[in-house]
Amino acid sequence: MKDMTNLDAYDVGYDIPAKPGMDEADIQTPALVLDLDALERNIRKMGDYAKAHGMRHRVHGKMHKSVDVAKLQQDIGGAVGVCCQKVSEAEVFARGGIKDVLVSNQVRDPAKLDRLARLPELGARIIVCVDDIDNVAELSAATQRHGTRIECLVEIDCGAGRCGVTTTEAVVEIARAIVAADGLRFTGIQAYQGAMQHMDSYEDRKAKLDIAIAQVKDAVDALKAAGIECELVSGGGTGSYYFESNSGVYNELQCGSYAFMDADYGRILDKDGNRIDRGEWENAFFILTSVMSHAKADKAIVDAGLKAQSVDSGLPVIFGRDDVEYVKCSDEHGVVMDPHGVLKVNDKLRLVPGHCDPTANVHDWYVGVRGGKVECVWPVSARGRAY
Amino acid sequence: MKDMTNLDAYDVGYDIPAKPGMDEADIQTPALVLDLDALERNIRKMGDYAKAHGMRHRVHGKMHKSVDVAKLQQDIGGAVGVCCQKVSEAEVFARGGIKDVLVSNQVRDPAKLDRLARLPELGARIIVCVDDIDNVAELSAATQRHGTRIECLVEIDCGAGRCGVTTTEAVVEIARAIVAADGLRFTGIQAYQGAMQHMDSYEDRKAKLDIAIAQVKDAVDALKAAGIECELVSGGGTGSYYFESNSGVYNELQCGSYAFMDADYGRILDKDGNRIDRGEWENAFFILTSVMSHAKADKAIVDAGLKAQSVDSGLPVIFGRDDVEYVKCSDEHGVVMDPHGVLKVNDKLRLVPGHCDPTANVHDWYVGVRGGKVECVWPVSARGRAY
Repeated sequence: MKDMTNLDAYDVGYDIPAKPGMDEADIQTPALVLDLDALERNIRKMGDYAKAHGMRHRVHGKMHKSVDVAKLQQDIGGAVGVCCQKVSEAEVFARGGIKDVLVSNQVRDPAKLDRLARLPELGARIIVCVDDIDNVAELSAATQRHGTRIECLVEIDCGAGRCGVTTTEAVVEIARAIVAADGLRFTGIQAYQGAMQHMDSYEDRKAKLDIAIAQVKDAVDALKAAGIECELVSGGGTGSYYFESNSGVYNELQCGSYAFMDADYGRILDKDGNRIDRGEWENAFFILTSVMSHAKADKAIVDAGLKAQSVDSGLPVIFGRDDVEYVKCSDEHGVVMDPHGVLKVNDKLRLVPGHCDPTANVHDWYVGVRGGKVECVWPVSARGRAY
Repeated sequence: MKDMTNLDAYDVGYDIPAKPGMDEADIQTPALVLDLDALERNIRKMGDYAKAHGMRHRVHGKMHKSVDVAKLQQDIGGAVGVCCQKVSEAEVFARGGIKDVLVSNQVRDPAKLDRLARLPELGARIIVCVDDIDNVAELSAATQRHGTRIECLVEIDCGAGRCGVTTTEAVVEIARAIVAADGLRFTGIQAYQGAMQHMDSYEDRKAKLDIAIAQVKDAVDALKAAGIECELVSGGGTGSYYFESNSGVYNELQCGSYAFMDADYGRILDKDGNRIDRGEWENAFFILTSVMSHAKADKAIVDAGLKAQSVDSGLPVIFGRDDVEYVKCSDEHGVVMDPHGVLKVNDKLRLVPGHCDPTANVHDWYVGVRGGKVECVWPVSARGRAY
């Protein structure tokens, strides 16, 4: 219902932070800014890695919630499609023209089951996760009501501690039920180890993934022994994709944050002990903020607070500056310590948010910049679509 | 541009969580739910208090960002208008028909100054805060460009540690400049002690407010001695309004959270040592969430995570239940400990979020319920309007 594709209909300031052609300095703040050069390098780099390792890359659309970013990931990063976490996100991606959409989550609500079962009518391949045998009959009934077919992955909890079964026996039992159900296809395994992605040490992450890989391999082998083949074994994130890629078990990655980077992910270390935002990936995603008060000599107040970001994973870091520091976040204000008084009112700063996913979800628009100019303004297409 | 007043144009599920007349049980989750009976009681109670104490009540619209809630506060709570923190919010409230709008914040960006100066054309009284003498000339020039008049409050930092001047001399100097400037009117003082609102102890809060009140009184007296009268001395929040109301200095309150309540505010104590959400105010604001996985016997996974709330002030509390506990929040999931296995898939829970303001800012819609039925669906009119 929100036609966010016709930028002419929007007023800069009232409901959109910028329009293409504007100088970066004239963007109304706070606003999400994408450094398009860095974004494109990140996307190409992960695409090249996946290709070199024979992996499909199903990019995680729940991170950016943007049809435009997903299409860029397909066009220049070789992505095969997206995964996302909610039916409402899948609706946005499928309506936006993405042809291969995995809801990497459980769908149980009766109305959501119907919404999911209608999605193949849009011409997209639709896949969903299952962790409860009762859900198989629900999904099958929904597809039969709508004359469609949905593919299913059995979700294994390999350490995230959320959804997913924990035993190979349960995987095989649910897979058999899917195979036997009308309107469904058993397509493989979902196994994302979320809890380890943000552990600083490469060796600690590897130890967790070794356990996960063994668990997934056991399930895949048991399925094979039962005569059930896995087309897809899907998982992996920005802190682990090299483990899944070299596992011999997984064949599909689900990375999200690599494209944007954030302060929390940036702090984890690669196998040489270097922060991953100092070489492996570039910061491409910023909150542009302005100084709007400097009534105290050593303290600047900026206009990006809790309504412009999520601080669940810590405060934002000011990009490219070590002379000033963002130290406190309230609803509409950030406090920036400025001990040498170098900032002036209306100065702009780029903040690297603590956590990119929920920060993107606060904003309606991405402002893509290159060479100091606004090149594109993209809607955060699935923003707020949590149901 | 987003016509959110015509609910017929929206599909339940895809872009709206419910429609009037639906059963509460059929709301698509996660969704913001307002208990209309509790909300109305809170609004009437604060309105009665303000009236009994001879205080104007300018409700804080930045909390709910809703024209509908603001109008309810005017209609049944005697509110004189709203305050808000951003020009974009003021635009929404003024376009929505609110006639007295204070931007309780600094406006310095050139484009924002122009947007602010155009707002009186909508027929609303527009007031803004000033903490820098250079801003006086900027505001004056903007009003003269548009042939309008803006009222100004000098902002005193009385403990929030953000914007605002800290000396009486600065207050008087800026006030004189406002009095002398074309297109501006000096209207009084803004002095909100934000930092103390969430201190648990009533006596600790009182000690902080005593300091603030003395500071504000000194400024008001000095202005009077300089021949400058304050029409408004404005401030006060849900954790302090009784102090300002009995100060003999303030004449306008700016409470916000009292109407909705949240888990963080609810924990502070009144003068008798009781939590303020156990008598003083009622929880009227909830995230309705559903159990969507229960693959482990003692752990239910619900569908409200970081995309449905802000956890800056702590995790949500499950309303009315002590048998289950929300213990972990990730992007799209909440982990609820369910030691006795009492929850089933599709069960619904009401969460009291840690912090109401940034939680409301994540959602597009309020679903107002009464007696188990959806009575109204209101847009979060100024959601995402942070610039």
